[in-house]
Amino acid sequence: MPKTDGPTIDGDRLLADLKRLAEFGRYETGVDRPTYSAVDVASRQWLAEKYAEAGLAPVIDGIGNVFGRAERASRRLLVGSHSETQPRGGWLDGALGVVYALELARAFAAAPALAGLGIETVAWADEEGHYGNMLGSRSFTGRLDESEIDAAQNRDGRRLRDALAEAGFAGKPRIAVDPARYLGYLEAHIEQGDTLDSRGLRIGIVEGIVGIWNFRVVVTGQQNHAGTTQMARRRDAGVAIMRLATQIHDRFAGLAGPRTVWTIGRMLLDPNAPSIVPGRAEMQVQFRDLDVRVLERFAAALQELAAAADAAGPCRVAVEDLSQTEARMMDPRFQDAIEAAAEHRVPGGHLRMPSGAGHDAQVISHRLRAGMMFIPSLKGISHHWSEDTKEADIVLGAQVFADAAAAILTAA
Amino acid sequence: MPKTDGPTIDGDRLLADLKRLAEFGRYETGVDRPTYSAVDVASRQWLAEKYAEAGLAPVIDGIGNVFGRAERASRRLLVGSHSETQPRGGWLDGALGVVYALELARAFAAAPALAGLGIETVAWADEEGHYGNMLGSRSFTGRLDESEIDAAQNRDGRRLRDALAEAGFAGKPRIAVDPARYLGYLEAHIEQGDTLDSRGLRIGIVEGIVGIWNFRVVVTGQQNHAGTTQMARRRDAGVAIMRLATQIHDRFAGLAGPRTVWTIGRMLLDPNAPSIVPGRAEMQVQFRDLDVRVLERFAAALQELAAAADAAGPCRVAVEDLSQTEARMMDPRFQDAIEAAAEHRVPGGHLRMPSGAGHDAQVISHRLRAGMMFIPSLKGISHHWSEDTKEADIVLGAQVFADAAAAILTAA
Repeated sequence: MPKTDGPTIDGDRLLADLKRLAEFGRYETGVDRPTYSAVDVASRQWLAEKYAEAGLAPVIDGIGNVFGRAERASRRLLVGSHSETQPRGGWLDGALGVVYALELARAFAAAPALAGLGIETVAWADEEGHYGNMLGSRSFTGRLDESEIDAAQNRDGRRLRDALAEAGFAGKPRIAVDPARYLGYLEAHIEQGDTLDSRGLRIGIVEGIVGIWNFRVVVTGQQNHAGTTQMARRRDAGVAIMRLATQIHDRFAGLAGPRTVWTIGRMLLDPNAPSIVPGRAEMQVQFRDLDVRVLERFAAALQELAAAADAAGPCRVAVEDLSQTEARMMDPRFQDAIEAAAEHRVPGGHLRMPSGAGHDAQVISHRLRAGMMFIPSLKGISHHWSEDTKEADIVLGAQVFADAAAAILTAA
Repeated sequence: MPKTDGPTIDGDRLLADLKRLAEFGRYETGVDRPTYSAVDVASRQWLAEKYAEAGLAPVIDGIGNVFGRAERASRRLLVGSHSETQPRGGWLDGALGVVYALELARAFAAAPALAGLGIETVAWADEEGHYGNMLGSRSFTGRLDESEIDAAQNRDGRRLRDALAEAGFAGKPRIAVDPARYLGYLEAHIEQGDTLDSRGLRIGIVEGIVGIWNFRVVVTGQQNHAGTTQMARRRDAGVAIMRLATQIHDRFAGLAGPRTVWTIGRMLLDPNAPSIVPGRAEMQVQFRDLDVRVLERFAAALQELAAAADAAGPCRVAVEDLSQTEARMMDPRFQDAIEAAAEHRVPGGHLRMPSGAGHDAQVISHRLRAGMMFIPSLKGISHHWSEDTKEADIVLGAQVFADAAAAILTAA
């Protein structure tokens, strides 16, 4: 890692650009900028202009990804994140990594010792899933076909094709990854949890992005009058699902790895009325881990507990597999580079950790070596307009990220 | 009980009148006749005409109760039920007891041995609670004041005062009970459970109407991201409420009397999304029994379990007392009269039992001796248009009910 001639972050410029980007769709102290909305399209055009000012060749492709290309570089890293937000979301989620990339490109261009080394920037489209699942990075890696684009619509029923046409993106080519072009992909992001903030740490080195497995459990009993149906005759789907939920929590606690998380966030009783014995109930069971063996033993335990409840009666219990995302490990050399840069700037103030949330880096990792870096989220708040991070941590993070990128690009 | 000169039910006439009444608001094989709707008002006018044909003096009062008065009788029983229905409800719920009363009045008038003994008929208003809670019987017993009438509205926001005016009932006096006028009150009803139907029994002698106690349990935790919040840091309101619900079910099972019923029919997680740790959860806990000591020990157990969960953390648990209705015992002599009549007509085919559902008889029992009789509900279905009872059971029930009324009126 260059000690003297490395890239130097301009903290004021970085923060000013982050705040300017947050003006597109400002909501309270956060941002409401759904993918392909007017403010999202305007912000992508603004990013393209900023890329050009930084000496990059801007291209917006057919899915809305914005690239800043360094055509004359001899070695390149692709750096970025997504630029749209959650509804009434935070000002840093996605935007932080996008503006970091822009600032890295500027800092590299200004450092003579880094001549010929290229930071290419990218702002992915729709990581937040307004129309689909990580549309931009999946398009780039060849994992999004036209039929899915044909079928997609947002929660208001607006069709993706119409949104792309209105944005001016329809008809443009979708840019596909050329793996030979890059040493790899780097993404910075706020942590979204409070692991760093609660421990006073300032940099997270992401070991991988967890796999997320989702199941629906449906319990079928018999709806009855709560006054006239004797207990012995009931088949109460509510009783059965609450008992099963508790068994699942208890069993999972004994099977978990050190960072496994599991959640029953959604439960519905039917008809959900105080004086009616529930005839049907359902819940979603979700668990996340980097280690597929942990995910597999959780899934097996869920199936076993549900089968036992079904066999014991009096209700029927069925488990439906809703979705399984694969855990994706980040490149070990990239982890080492980020860790070394962090240790140089803030000795002892960093932590290797999994990402419990999904990111474009997990998609890109199928085609390029990928690395991710976290900075703290105050109180772990995200997906809410009150999300925030200390300015000093934002600036420090950019410098560590730039140092790491320089180390990767200058390594043998 | 008179063996030869008693009242004789005309089964064809009874069934024809029940079917005619079901034409007011017919829905599929059931009835949709909410209180004070046009069909409800028309049905009350039809009942008044039928009372007059039976030799009674019809009066519709200021809350919509329809009375058939036997002014010249020397001893009187008040007999009836409610005539409106649940939305898309059954054809017998309420209507059965109203038409039984009409048929009893006719059968008594036709029996020379019963001369001077009076069946007075009544069709109560709004037992089903479209605008309030048993408005008609509470008005009759002095338990409904004008301010409650002023404030009441139905679920569509229609004001009770407007409904009464449109029905033509506003301005009429509300008739209040004269306890000296009656030996007591009798009400027949479908069981609404399957205790009789499942055992092949044909008559239920109601021992009392259960008390119903309702509580709301609110669990407060902390809403968090389901991917980025480690298990040890979570305060998951969903986990806490499901565990507590299971503890409540288990504890209650050990405290129950032979006929106690308890139900957690309504539960809400907030925000109820698969990838968000629930920050708040609530449920309603309801239990019913004839014995207030059982209700009290259930309430104490609920409070104890909730307090223990609150103390154990990590979530706060609060219990709110929503409502408590008092259990009301039916008059023992009336029970004996119904049982003797049942044993005479269908030896061994009857059962003493509590009513798990509420009825006007519980309100009337505060001012008059009261008795109730059940006939079977096929498969226990009620509050649904498919509710039904075999015609033979309907006719048999009316005869038993008439025999019991005669026995009460002729007793020393």
